[in-house]
Amino acid sequence: MEGSQLHSQGKLYIVGIGPGGAGHMTGRAVAAISESEYVLGNSTYMQQVKHLLGGKKAMPSGMGDEVERAKRAVGLASSHIVSLVSGGDANVYGMAGIVFEVAAGIDVDIEVVPGVTALSAASALLGAPLVTDFAVISLSDLLTPWEKIVKRLECAASSDFVIAIYNPKSRGRSTHFAGAVEIIRKYRAGTVPVGIVKNATRDGETAIVTTLDRVLEHSDVVDMSTTIIIGNSESMMHGSRIVTPRGYRNKYEY
Amino acid sequence: MEGSQLHSQGKLYIVGIGPGGAGHMTGRAVAAISESEYVLGNSTYMQQVKHLLGGKKAMPSGMGDEVERAKRAVGLASSHIVSLVSGGDANVYGMAGIVFEVAAGIDVDIEVVPGVTALSAASALLGAPLVTDFAVISLSDLLTPWEKIVKRLECAASSDFVIAIYNPKSRGRSTHFAGAVEIIRKYRAGTVPVGIVKNATRDGETAIVTTLDRVLEHSDVVDMSTTIIIGNSESMMHGSRIVTPRGYRNKYEY
Repeated sequence: MEGSQLHSQGKLYIVGIGPGGAGHMTGRAVAAISESEYVLGNSTYMQQVKHLLGGKKAMPSGMGDEVERAKRAVGLASSHIVSLVSGGDANVYGMAGIVFEVAAGIDVDIEVVPGVTALSAASALLGAPLVTDFAVISLSDLLTPWEKIVKRLECAASSDFVIAIYNPKSRGRSTHFAGAVEIIRKYRAGTVPVGIVKNATRDGETAIVTTLDRVLEHSDVVDMSTTIIIGNSESMMHGSRIVTPRGYRNKYEY
Repeated sequence: MEGSQLHSQGKLYIVGIGPGGAGHMTGRAVAAISESEYVLGNSTYMQQVKHLLGGKKAMPSGMGDEVERAKRAVGLASSHIVSLVSGGDANVYGMAGIVFEVAAGIDVDIEVVPGVTALSAASALLGAPLVTDFAVISLSDLLTPWEKIVKRLECAASSDFVIAIYNPKSRGRSTHFAGAVEIIRKYRAGTVPVGIVKNATRDGETAIVTTLDRVLEHSDVVDMSTTIIIGNSESMMHGSRIVTPRGYRNKYEY
């Protein structure tokens, strides 16, 4: 009886905490963490919500421990209110997938709390690079074969999607970003604007507006905390900003 | 002198207010609107922030008035604090683009406040459909030629992107959604899971999990307030949810 009561009180929130700046979390994300007895996440994200952790059992872990972290969260959530924090949005290269995978067949109440993903935070700093169709591609080949990534880059470039690149470079993958730029350059003019945003909304925030031809000059800024937005054939620079027209000029005078 | 002082006090926030539920706005979005003297937006979005409008000059407008609304916001912002509210994220088919277009050459201080876009809100309700590379495509041909939309659908489907569809159907465009499904069906099995989410986080919230073969049976639910998520070749149904594995199974035992 008691076990069953405890069970029915458990809940797992998979919380998208947004790009990092405290102001960019949603009210629902703050409420979920505040309501939780346990909070799990990798050390970087735990640091970003530390103002909410008073009196809670905080369980930070390292990068790469996603499977273990998901299992631990699912286990605790059978009888406790638990938040598993995920950077940005929990669906966009976040923790939602692995949690549902390890929770398959286990009776646990799961709610995903959506968040502001890095491409929105990066685009906000760049102006309006993204206001038409876009493709989102991670250059990490840890979980996706590089050949598949190449095919997606080719397709996205050839059909004029704005392209948002996540995880452009890590210590173990220094050449993929240059490779991606080379692929896109086959289909798109070298003058196409490119935005490089690092640490959006966080300490050390950097936004650089450059072009496809010159983007590799900024390789030192590019790492796992960087998001790259590559304009489409219509994207333009407006001063220090990138604007992709959405076709209003074809319909309206202004 | 006075003119210049007034000028320097003006500011325009382009505010992504999220999917609609009050809890899914960010703190920064709430603060920007609260700080503003004028708040502009289409009637639907103004309704979603009405709890913040006390004592403000609220200027709602109709759908389709984007250019006029952007011009009015830019004009007011030379000497006032102004928020222009945009559903979801201001960059994802939002108001950021047209504002920067009409503001070109005008000296006005603009800040884009990012928000939770519809695909994150929809994915949260569906589980984890999206945790790998994805393409985002609007089926509205009001501002993008249909031939370009078709090419993007072909490309996204053939290179196994998860596909998020915005604006799947309006009163004037009843056939595009069926056309898009037919294109994707050429490249992807009929058993691939599809999520249909209407009014995410708002009154009348509906989430349907179905397959590519059966999605058109739900056409009555599909309209401009609906987001569709089409899984890739690896997406699976877990009970009432869609989960796209991210390749952890290739690397870890669990």
